[in-house]
Amino acid sequence: MPYRAPIADYAYMFDHVVGFSQVAETERFSEASPDMVTAILGEAGRMCEDKLAPLQREGDLNGAYLENGVVRTSPGFAEGYGAIREGGWLGISADPEYGGMGLPMAMMSAVNEMMSGACMALQLNPLLTQGQIEALEHHASDEIKALYLPKLISGEWNGTMNLTEPQAGSDVGALRTRAEANGDGSYAITGQKIFITWGDGDFMENVCHLVLARLPDGVPGPKGISLFLVPKYIPDDAGKPGKANALKVVSLEHKLGVHGSPTCVMQYDGATGWMVGPEHGGMAAMFTMMNNARLGVGMQGIGVAEAAYQHALAYAMDRKQGRTPIEGGSGAIIDHADVRRMLATMKADIFAARAIGMACAVAIDMGNATGDKEWKARGAFLTPIAKAFGSETGIRVAETGVQVHGGMGFIEETGAAQFCRDVRVTSIYEGTNGIQAMDLAGRKLMDGGEAACALIEEIAEQAEAARPKQPRMAGAVWDAVEALRETTDWMVSQGDVNERFAGAVPFLMGWARVLGAHYHLRAACAEDGDGPRTRLARFYIQRLLPEYAAQLAHATQGAGDLYALTDDDLGVA
Amino acid sequence: MPYRAPIADYAYMFDHVVGFSQVAETERFSEASPDMVTAILGEAGRMCEDKLAPLQREGDLNGAYLENGVVRTSPGFAEGYGAIREGGWLGISADPEYGGMGLPMAMMSAVNEMMSGACMALQLNPLLTQGQIEALEHHASDEIKALYLPKLISGEWNGTMNLTEPQAGSDVGALRTRAEANGDGSYAITGQKIFITWGDGDFMENVCHLVLARLPDGVPGPKGISLFLVPKYIPDDAGKPGKANALKVVSLEHKLGVHGSPTCVMQYDGATGWMVGPEHGGMAAMFTMMNNARLGVGMQGIGVAEAAYQHALAYAMDRKQGRTPIEGGSGAIIDHADVRRMLATMKADIFAARAIGMACAVAIDMGNATGDKEWKARGAFLTPIAKAFGSETGIRVAETGVQVHGGMGFIEETGAAQFCRDVRVTSIYEGTNGIQAMDLAGRKLMDGGEAACALIEEIAEQAEAARPKQPRMAGAVWDAVEALRETTDWMVSQGDVNERFAGAVPFLMGWARVLGAHYHLRAACAEDGDGPRTRLARFYIQRLLPEYAAQLAHATQGAGDLYALTDDDLGVA
Repeated sequence: MPYRAPIADYAYMFDHVVGFSQVAETERFSEASPDMVTAILGEAGRMCEDKLAPLQREGDLNGAYLENGVVRTSPGFAEGYGAIREGGWLGISADPEYGGMGLPMAMMSAVNEMMSGACMALQLNPLLTQGQIEALEHHASDEIKALYLPKLISGEWNGTMNLTEPQAGSDVGALRTRAEANGDGSYAITGQKIFITWGDGDFMENVCHLVLARLPDGVPGPKGISLFLVPKYIPDDAGKPGKANALKVVSLEHKLGVHGSPTCVMQYDGATGWMVGPEHGGMAAMFTMMNNARLGVGMQGIGVAEAAYQHALAYAMDRKQGRTPIEGGSGAIIDHADVRRMLATMKADIFAARAIGMACAVAIDMGNATGDKEWKARGAFLTPIAKAFGSETGIRVAETGVQVHGGMGFIEETGAAQFCRDVRVTSIYEGTNGIQAMDLAGRKLMDGGEAACALIEEIAEQAEAARPKQPRMAGAVWDAVEALRETTDWMVSQGDVNERFAGAVPFLMGWARVLGAHYHLRAACAEDGDGPRTRLARFYIQRLLPEYAAQLAHATQGAGDLYALTDDDLGVA
Repeated sequence: MPYRAPIADYAYMFDHVVGFSQVAETERFSEASPDMVTAILGEAGRMCEDKLAPLQREGDLNGAYLENGVVRTSPGFAEGYGAIREGGWLGISADPEYGGMGLPMAMMSAVNEMMSGACMALQLNPLLTQGQIEALEHHASDEIKALYLPKLISGEWNGTMNLTEPQAGSDVGALRTRAEANGDGSYAITGQKIFITWGDGDFMENVCHLVLARLPDGVPGPKGISLFLVPKYIPDDAGKPGKANALKVVSLEHKLGVHGSPTCVMQYDGATGWMVGPEHGGMAAMFTMMNNARLGVGMQGIGVAEAAYQHALAYAMDRKQGRTPIEGGSGAIIDHADVRRMLATMKADIFAARAIGMACAVAIDMGNATGDKEWKARGAFLTPIAKAFGSETGIRVAETGVQVHGGMGFIEETGAAQFCRDVRVTSIYEGTNGIQAMDLAGRKLMDGGEAACALIEEIAEQAEAARPKQPRMAGAVWDAVEALRETTDWMVSQGDVNERFAGAVPFLMGWARVLGAHYHLRAACAEDGDGPRTRLARFYIQRLLPEYAAQLAHATQGAGDLYALTDDDLGVA
């Protein structure tokens, strides 16, 4: 199915909405000039359109399978992966010392969005490797870096994350996998891990597993966990994949979607690994990496949303049905008010989610480039919102895409349903959206709401500045952000964190709604006169923004009414 | 997977929420005494739990397939269908003269909900037959009635609806299937129909197709369409299935869900049929039947929602993960505030959707029993709300059920994902939810808003009456219904129907939110003190009802901003 990389949308976003120029002005990212950005996004976009998009349906129909212990990948995935590798798209943000491009996270996030829009199942492979590259850059010894990073950045080898065990999902600290010193600096890893994305494949020269495990003296819970790098093939003296390690893929999961991405149950039977980061410091190492992986998952949601939108739009522009209700329309169903409402909702929400994701990436880049605490705090604050709202947008847009197709939407050949099935996982993995919301309402307000308030101030100031040009929209954003300020204050003032958690998800969604309006307004203000971005902003602010009031009312209910409902009340009568 | 029929919920609903006693007091439905209702629902519930629920997963894994022109059904479906037949569950509301039970639609709807909760793919079979029974009761000649109704009501034969053609979906009037008189009172039907649910099967003695087609002198559009009954096997003189008719199943669709329900492409090559209703009066005949089928689809959504809820609840009560945030909790994830919020949302919405569906059924029953115009108008007004909100609730609850399961929700073996895939079709077929909303904002307000206002009055009066007992909840419902009154007045005052359509879906959803609060409040008021239904009502009214304001704001935007967005604006840049 044709997929068009949203290059011009990104250009506008970078130039007028999320302030990318600040990033390009830092010394660290001085190479990210406008020309460079255009060239990179254009080239990545073409690769996505030409090489990856044709694989999307193939991966669904002919998913990965296990044959004699080897994962066989979907037809064409090896070639698609080759294109990603050759373009250097794995290492966009990686350290140039080891072969990376050293470009900003914002650019990597944009490219990742496009790759997942084109073929999410395949894109999961480099996404996990990117996470591993980051973890090793921050936490591994120089020796490990020198050996592994060039291979991972070039894409010759791949990386995975091994956290989950059957009894240890969201509660990673409950894991049982053991690590014992071999006496030669290496460790023997024993245990079973589940939900290992791209745990194996037939086009990967080596697969490097980052495995959380407990040393014999590790205390129970998260503070006793260490991180180990466990390669499928142990590198020989020349750094080539040598003897097979004591690990295997036990089985693959049968999933609702992303069939082209093998989700493995991995068994480690005294496999040889090397520690990354300090003893018992595995969770911290995992967390730095996970934070950026969370943004990556949000971008996946946006990518699939964009693809589902394009797919539905093409159908709505082509399908004739019923009398056209307007003069001079195309005669296709896009002329019908309700279909138009659905399409505009999809497009307006994609813009909002993408702007939040990009603003998050810019903040992370600024934090990395300048070391500034406020930028770092902003990146951390926006991360759970970018993840949860990006994935929710993916789910809702794909869902609406099915609806635009009517009866054809329920037929698999149409392709609309696959977007729904694929994107569904994004609100679950890398921390469920509930966990993102608890992170936002809990940990991310532990600064007394400082990062939140700085953002609120910025939104309010911009609304004020926009009043002359867009009085109605600016007024609506102003009202919304004042309500958000009140709600955020309420959250910060709750001593019992469970009072916050009882409304954490609507709190996060209310934040996303208001942030979306903020960026839409900014896009409108940057436009000469009443152009397409202003019209879309008006649609969003008049029709979608008002939801914030219900979300914020929900957010501040506290835990009382939830626990007043007993388990029996919730039971079946 | 275990499914428990929600018998006690239904008993409370009938007794205290939707005023079923009025139905039982009519002469026509005098047999529907409380004892009778209890006995019927109890027996149907057991059948659903014991015979149908075990088939749900089987139908998904081993869906129907086409073999040499014959549809092979899923393992166990023949036996499951036998149980439905033997219980007489097809003919609950059918005319006793032909073997039906003659019971109210409210009871049939309750039983249908339970059957679809247990196994939606199989339940689609009797649902379509029930629709055909109703169409024949109202529109067929005595001869056709005498021949077909006893067979359909007993379930020996099945019924289908043949409306859609590739170019004629929502716009049924665009159909091309032709009918020509054979000179002996029968007609030769020629054409292709798509999306024919249960168009064939290997456990059905005969399949009776109701086919919309155009006579040679039929004008283009819906006014030139007639309705024909076209059996797979033409009944012989003894009324037994005789010679095969000139029709066949060309192929089955590959669908997102309900794999156990064969969705057929049907080819008619001069097949013999008999006219039902007057020449060129096919749409009217189809519409009477479709209205009740729409309620039936809403009940499917609720049934799947109930099943998905039970499934998620069982998981949440069993799964241990993380530290329990409350004293004296079970230690399972149901103790976590966010999981509890999800479960309570599911349960509160199921109650709201079920109450709306039952109130609709009661109104239809009262209209049928008394001939009263106001009851008929209320039934007609509530039907699109019951269909759209019932199906949306099915989709959202099943979706939340996956989320409650975390990573396991994405794995097909868990079963949570199947509910999502199955229920997805309910917002599409029998008129998409967009079409339901246009029906509500257009046709159903053509009385100048009389039926709507009568309902609004009733809600306001009840809120007023509830003030002494539940001041806070009553006040919230009062505010909401006054906003709903304003919005409804706005809708009625729009001369250009496209202004209404531009906000029709949020208008319908706003209505559903307020109606849900109304029934929750009624359930709370009927309870002694502060019991489980009051606590659930409080949750709904405080946390979910506030959404109405955003919906109603969205509803009254008019079409201007939608069409201000040009096709180019909506395009990909």
